[in-house]
Parts: sequence; C-alpha cells; structure tokens
Amino acid sequence: MSLDATLRKDTDAVIPGGLWGHQNVTRYGMGDYTPQFFSRAKGGRVWDVDGKEYIDFMAGYGPIVLGPNDPDVEAAAQAQRETGVVFNGPSPILVEVSKYVVDLIPHADWVLFSKNGTDATTQCVTIARSATKKRKVLMAKGAYHGAVPWCSPSLVGVTAEDRAHIVLYDFNDHTSLLAAAKPHLSDLACVLVSAFKHDLGRTHEMPAAAFLQAARKLCDDTGAALICDEVRAGMRIHMQGTWEVVEGHGVRPDLAAWSKAVANGYPLAFVTGNNKFRKGAANIYATGSFWTESASLAAGLATMKKLVRIDGPRRMHELGTKLRDGINEQARKWGVPIEQSGPPQMPVILFPDDKFGKWERGHVFVKEAMKRGVYMHPTHTMFVNVCLTDKDIEDALKVTDAALEVVAKQFGYRSSL
Amino acid sequence: MSLDATLRKDTDAVIPGGLWGHQNVTRYGMGDYTPQFFSRAKGGRVWDVDGKEYIDFMAGYGPIVLGPNDPDVEAAAQAQRETGVVFNGPSPILVEVSKYVVDLIPHADWVLFSKNGTDATTQCVTIARSATKKRKVLMAKGAYHGAVPWCSPSLVGVTAEDRAHIVLYDFNDHTSLLAAAKPHLSDLACVLVSAFKHDLGRTHEMPAAAFLQAARKLCDDTGAALICDEVRAGMRIHMQGTWEVVEGHGVRPDLAAWSKAVANGYPLAFVTGNNKFRKGAANIYATGSFWTESASLAAGLATMKKLVRIDGPRRMHELGTKLRDGINEQARKWGVPIEQSGPPQMPVILFPDDKFGKWERGHVFVKEAMKRGVYMHPTHTMFVNVCLTDKDIEDALKVTDAALEVVAKQFGYRSSL
Repeated sequence: MSLDATLRKDTDAVIPGGLWGHQNVTRYGMGDYTPQFFSRAKGGRVWDVDGKEYIDFMAGYGPIVLGPNDPDVEAAAQAQRETGVVFNGPSPILVEVSKYVVDLIPHADWVLFSKNGTDATTQCVTIARSATKKRKVLMAKGAYHGAVPWCSPSLVGVTAEDRAHIVLYDFNDHTSLLAAAKPHLSDLACVLVSAFKHDLGRTHEMPAAAFLQAARKLCDDTGAALICDEVRAGMRIHMQGTWEVVEGHGVRPDLAAWSKAVANGYPLAFVTGNNKFRKGAANIYATGSFWTESASLAAGLATMKKLVRIDGPRRMHELGTKLRDGINEQARKWGVPIEQSGPPQMPVILFPDDKFGKWERGHVFVKEAMKRGVYMHPTHTMFVNVCLTDKDIEDALKVTDAALEVVAKQFGYRSSL
Repeated sequence: MSLDATLRKDTDAVIPGGLWGHQNVTRYGMGDYTPQFFSRAKGGRVWDVDGKEYIDFMAGYGPIVLGPNDPDVEAAAQAQRETGVVFNGPSPILVEVSKYVVDLIPHADWVLFSKNGTDATTQCVTIARSATKKRKVLMAKGAYHGAVPWCSPSLVGVTAEDRAHIVLYDFNDHTSLLAAAKPHLSDLACVLVSAFKHDLGRTHEMPAAAFLQAARKLCDDTGAALICDEVRAGMRIHMQGTWEVVEGHGVRPDLAAWSKAVANGYPLAFVTGNNKFRKGAANIYATGSFWTESASLAAGLATMKKLVRIDGPRRMHELGTKLRDGINEQARKWGVPIEQSGPPQMPVILFPDDKFGKWERGHVFVKEAMKRGVYMHPTHTMFVNVCLTDKDIEDALKVTDAALEVVAKQFGYRSSL
C-alpha cells in the first residue's frame, strides 16, 4: 500500500469524510489519480508523500505566490518569532504593515487584519450593514465568497434565515444586477463582486468595464458598499487590485477582502476600506485570538514588498501566457477543442465538449498530466507562481502535449493540421 | 512622546477605531494606563514598546500557555517550515495530530482543524444543524462564543435573522435551561455551554454537576448536540476537557470547540466530536486556505504533548492558587472586599463594591499593578502560565500588596486585622 493510501485510511478514521473542504481530492472526482498528502515543496516543484515529484500549478490553492520557503518572507517571520508573536496587544509590525497596505491599495484608507478569507468577506458585509443600517447583500449566482452559512456553497446545516437577505445577480450582466437590486433599493447594504469570475468548473471572466460602472453607480446612488472579493485573486493580477487591469472603467471598490497570496502561506487575511466606511468599520465587533500574531503580519509585509519589487504579477503573467499559448497550440495540433480562461496568472482549462459536472476530458487530461509529473486541476482555478521557471513551463508543456494526445485518442479527435 | 503613544496615533490613522476587538485597551477603560503595543516576551515576562517590563498574567489573552518561544514547539514548527507548510493537500502531520487529539479527548471520535475559535464554534452549530435537521441554538445569556453575527457581543451590523434561532438561558440554572428549551423541543439543534462561565466583568463559575446533567439529559431526550465551548479554557484546566474536573457529573459533550492555548500562539482551532455527529460533520462544507497549514498543526501537537508530559494544568493550578491565596490574604490585611473567581489557572479579580460597568476599584488596582510591573486585567479572565516561576508569583504579590494598599486608601477601607 502506498503511504498516501495508508494516510487516507488513517484520516478516514479521525476526520469526518476523510478531509474537509477544498483539499479533499475525492470532492473533485480526482480521488483515484491524485495524491492527497504532500511532504515537501521547493521552487516550482512539490513532492507527494510517496516521493513523486510534480511541477506545481496549484500553489496550495493560492497562498504560495513567491514559492515555498521564500528566504525574504521566512527571515521577516523569524525575526518576529524571536521576540514572541502573540502579546497582550500588537507588536509594532502591525502599524508598519497597515501603513504599507494603505499606501499600496488606492481605495484603502484603512485596513483590518484577520486569518481566513471568510473572516474578511464576512467583515465586509458586517461593515456595510453597520455603515448603511441596511440589510440586503447582492451576490453573483455561483460565486464563492467563503464557507460559513451566509455564503457557503452548501446548504447543509444552513437555515433559511442565514440567507434571508442574500439577493442573486448574474456576474458581468448589469441588467441582471439592476433588476436584482430594484425591489431592495431602500434596503441595500452592499454589492459583492468577485475580483473576476472564477466559479468552479465555469469559464473564468474578467469583469466588464460597463458592469463595474453599473455596480459603482448603483452603490453611489443608494449608499450601498461596493465590495470586491480579492481573496483568491489579490496580489496576483495587479498589486493595487485586480480591477486595475480592466481598461476604461475607473471603478474602485469601497471595501475589499484579501487573503491567500498576501503572506506566502502564512495565515493572513485583511479588509481594506475607504473613509466613507471607516466609522462603520470602527463600530463592528470582530476579533480573533491570533489576529495580531506578528509572524504572519511580518510575512505579509515581506511578501507584498517583494511582489512589488520584482513585479510578481507581470512575471506570473509571462509564465502563464507561455503555458497557455503552448497548450493552445498543442490542442490545435491534436484537434482537441479546449477553452483556457481567466487571467494567465490564474488559469482554468476546460473542454467545451465536457458535460458540466462530469468533465470527462478534463479528468483524463489532468490524470495524464499528473502521471507524468505535472500537478493541475480539472475544474478549479489554477495558480501560476513567481517561482516557476521558463524551464518548468517547457517541461510542463512536454507533459501537456502527451496528455492532450491521450485525450485526442480516447475521445476520437483528429488533428486539423 | 512615548513610542506607544506614537504608534497609537499612527494606528488611529490606518485602523478604524485604533484597533479591533479584545486587544483594544480603550474598550476596557484601560487606555490611559496600559500600553497598547508590545515588543518582546520571555518566560513569564513581557516588555512594552517603551521597554517597561511586566510579569504577565494575560498571556496574549490565552494562547501563550507554555511561555513565549517554547523550544519544543518552535522546533516542531520549524521542522515543518523547512519542508513547506501549505501544499495542495495536507502533510502527514495532520494525521498525526488528529490521532493524538482523538486519543487525548475522551468524547472525541474525530477532529476538524481551523484557525479561529469562532471558526470552531460556528462549525459546531452547523454540524449540530446538519446532523439533527433542526435549527434552535440554546446559548447562555452574556456568554462569549465568538465575533460573527450569530454570536457577536455586539449587534452592530447584525440582522434580526442572524439571531432568529438563538434562545437564551441562564448559565448553571437548569430550571432556566429547561424553560428556555420547552417551546422548541421539536426544533432543538444544540445546547451551547461554555467550559465554565467566564463572562466579562462577571464572577466566574464552574458548571454545577446538576446543570451539566440536566443539559446532557435534555440533549439525549431531544437528539440535540451538547456543545462545550473550550476555546478560552481548553488545555488549561484539564487536558481531557474542563468538565473532567467537575465532580460527580459524568457528563461529556457531543461536540467541543477548542483554540487559544492549543498551539502556544500558533493560529489553530479545532472541533472534536463523537460518532453520533460524524456524518453531520462530514456533510457540512467548511474550509479555509490555511486549515492544513502544517507549522501550526505541528506546533499544536508539540504543545499538547508537552502540556500532558509536564502536567501543565496542575502546574498552572499551583501557580494560580499561590497568587490567589496571597492576594486574598493581602485584601484581608488592607480590609478591601475582593472576589477572586474562576479556576486558579484562569482567574478574574473583581471588587464587589464596584458598580458593573464602572469597575473603579478594579481600575485603580490594575493601574497600580501595571505601574509596578505586573500586567493584569480589571474585567477579563486572566491566564496563569506554565512558564511563570514561583519567584514571579512572589514578585507579583509584592506589587499586588502595594496596589491593594492604594485601593484601601483611595476608597477608605480599613484593615480589619
């Protein structure tokens, strides 16, 4: 029995369902061909517990943006650890990183730190309600904003009241947004918009300028907060916010939720907001035992500074574009219809001939890639990292070529060349 | 201007209200005499940013149970950091720590890890609802179970629907518990009980055996989950659960929420549960980007093992008893009416002549203690730590004696000796 199989068996005994949430590979139908446990990561590579090496395009589902064990991040965290990390009040690093974030993010006049992306999205909604004294939350159908009852993708254990004030619209469809808002104009607390559409198994889409403008105007007209959920995308597309790369819109959010990549794997999240919502934010009660824990704050500061210094988003864009262009060319060569979407730093690779929910071609493609040492995902956003090299991309492309060949043969596609 | 004052000014500009939550010293009326920022901790001592040293009875509001930078905990965390900490799946340390917790905690057949105490309490409620398909949550008046809308101590930004299924009872009053349950017997999801009553500014109370038995019977009769909130108390009173020290009750919870002390300052929380609630737990969706982060899991394992090995709760009990006995004797000497409550490991010191919400004597006492280098809190549970020495307690008692003398003089108490 492989070590992975042994560990899965052991875990089944002590963790309900084997493992919670997004890292449970059986949830994605990947259980048969993907390792569940990992033992090591270095540069752009990860090793599973049985010693197999992969070029990694998941980066721990997003956090590892500079690569594992980045020396600058580790040195900053270690310096804090040596003094102690949880005191009866914050250490001065809180002030330093707060100032840095407020200087970096154009819409930000202030910041609140926490530990989970869900902490940050939940706080955004609470702050919006605190400031506006209104209740309704406009949210895109199918969008992921966290894993607690008000926004969980599952309704198990959730009451109707938890969702009483959630109103759904279609992402990037401003007619739908305004129609959804119309019955609630006098009770609108906020409009929650993902940095870009990155729903599981769906084509990823950047927001359209007209959509962002309509959302901004709706908020300006009603006093509601425009909230950008940057948890998954933040610090990967543009250091000042993902919407900065949407041309010709001029829209900035009132509040934004950040996590994942902001501290290169250290548990950190934050909300940024403008002065219109400062009092609303000061009035809510939200806290956690580890929210001023200084090693993570120092890691966050070092991560953001380094991403700015090396222009991380540009480098990830280059690497992602090289991967995408290569795969597109291979798909054409093998005659396999393919759809690569999302910003190149955060791709999803879908096969238009796959049925939603089955993803047969996607599973074959990813299984063949895994077999040959490339860790990809059939339905979730992937993450291209700064620490990948051009050589890693070239090696990965050799593998995707072979994987696409298998897809072509298995599903009867013929080269059109 | 002191460095603390400068940092407060800087923080006011970039963090709404100066600082969120429980660490904001102005929320407790301590703003004028307590430092807000800390730079270093060692053994039982902390240093504020202006270099003043304190014997510490707050331990970061609970996490620092073995003392800052415990060598065993740091070595375990460092070993994980060297391999990388956030992967596309957990590292084997997850299995090891899960097994350890399930072996350690008598009621536990399984465990789920997360990052905040609030993550764990929220999951307990969601699991209870998932398993029972019922909705009502019985909760003690004034109890703190976290800082999100369903349980926050503040109603700012909270909607009526967030609390729609919360039903209140009086802690330790089984008549009140049963009366509160009565209208909801067919819709009861859970009974939430703090490990002991540790409400802000109130006399702390261990649960009575009769109360625990009534809660257990109510849950057994209705199928509801009995949930113990161990977030603040866990691993300080008894390694197998706080209720183990309540004599003659034989009650164990179905679900329990743990955090704070479990990883000596590393951000970690978990839910433990029995097999009756395993399927309910497997069916909910709850996840976080950092919930398998392996440095914190390793720190948790090392912390719990060491607390067991050295019998941490017993040592904290000894230290806390020495402090309590000493202060009681001093209070008698100065003729100051005083009420020390809570288990000796987690004391609160109140002055019965103080008005609730004003705490004039409490503030004078703590201010005078702070001045002389002892960090205490006028209203919140304090935390006695393993790393305090007998000499620390003796030094602290010299200070409390002087502080009580000031209270006696200022409020006109006379020695009764």
